[in-house]
Amino acid sequence: MDKKTYNLMEQYMLNCMNDSAHDKDHIYRVLYNALDIAAYEKNVDHDVLITSCLLHDICRKDQIEDPSLCHAEEGSKKAYRFLIDNGFSEDFADKVRHCIKTHRFRKNDPPKSIEAKILFDADKLDVTGAIGIARTLIYKGTISDPLYTLNVDGTVSDGKNDKHPSFFQEYRFKLENIYSRFFTTRGYFLAKKRQKNAQAFYDSILSEVKSTYDNKDKLQIN
Amino acid sequence: MDKKTYNLMEQYMLNCMNDSAHDKDHIYRVLYNALDIAAYEKNVDHDVLITSCLLHDICRKDQIEDPSLCHAEEGSKKAYRFLIDNGFSEDFADKVRHCIKTHRFRKNDPPKSIEAKILFDADKLDVTGAIGIARTLIYKGTISDPLYTLNVDGTVSDGKNDKHPSFFQEYRFKLENIYSRFFTTRGYFLAKKRQKNAQAFYDSILSEVKSTYDNKDKLQIN
Repeated sequence: MDKKTYNLMEQYMLNCMNDSAHDKDHIYRVLYNALDIAAYEKNVDHDVLITSCLLHDICRKDQIEDPSLCHAEEGSKKAYRFLIDNGFSEDFADKVRHCIKTHRFRKNDPPKSIEAKILFDADKLDVTGAIGIARTLIYKGTISDPLYTLNVDGTVSDGKNDKHPSFFQEYRFKLENIYSRFFTTRGYFLAKKRQKNAQAFYDSILSEVKSTYDNKDKLQIN
Repeated sequence: MDKKTYNLMEQYMLNCMNDSAHDKDHIYRVLYNALDIAAYEKNVDHDVLITSCLLHDICRKDQIEDPSLCHAEEGSKKAYRFLIDNGFSEDFADKVRHCIKTHRFRKNDPPKSIEAKILFDADKLDVTGAIGIARTLIYKGTISDPLYTLNVDGTVSDGKNDKHPSFFQEYRFKLENIYSRFFTTRGYFLAKKRQKNAQAFYDSILSEVKSTYDNKDKLQIN
């Protein structure tokens, strides 16, 4: 990719970003993860891949403001229009559109091209390991969700069957289950390498919180 | 403590809380930590301790709205007035005031009573280990600070000499240095037990982020 094109994509991406869990640093990590994975794959169109990485979350803000919108669907259309308006070919814009449209997990619309599979995996990698834990906690902070909820008997719930949102619930419901959902060998390898970091953190915090609440019995209220 | 008094303190505390890193769950963890530590100390006035734990952060909101205020200083005065207004003795209100006033680390105003030392340690315990990491990340989310910043050469800074705020900076500047600042033997023991959890998380996330940015070299821009 030439520098002028990269700067155009980067600047458009920066103009579209604002929230802190899905901010520009996430975009760069996805881009660098994608370049890592791409080095293990054949026939990758790097221009399609780089453009798709930079633009994949340009409609995050729209989904936050209106949760009925899907940022992958909206972002794919917005990126397509942006590319056509800036003189890129229909073929190129269409390839980028497919990558962005399918980067969010949905059974009926999986990534098909190698660039789409790489973007999908590179994005999911940023939800694995310690970085996935950190991004989830930062996001929980922005929406004021609690770390955990209590069972009816006052003990700390481990999140497994929780109906109310919390960090523990998000870990058990989503974070611990993403390690099998990778399309590329390199993506899966990197995810598995990080899995123990996330597991160790959840085990640690659960143990710390539970042992703290064990002292509730010492509260003598007559 | 009798149930009516506990409910009075608890309800007043709940009315004063709102933000998510210092919310009511923190108050209960501090209370339960304090009961744990108190079991290893002699001559502890449990009513003073329980009241101080419940009311120690009632002016957090005031400090967030006006950072020139010290929540320990303001909270101690507010708790004193609340107790006097509700018919508690001046001696009792004064003991609680001392605990709340000194629970924030300041060289010239250390906790002196055993209840004040226990509250100090119980509060600091909630900044140790995985729970300290989680609360810091949630707080960083609410104020939109980034996870890390980059060095001038584009590599990831480990936070050690950072001037700009980030999670890595907060870990190196504050979180990793709190383990020696405990007044009670039990508080110190519990903190040291959790230290490896915080260290492991920082090491993991630093390694994940650094190895991601190592792929930046694969970005071929002409």
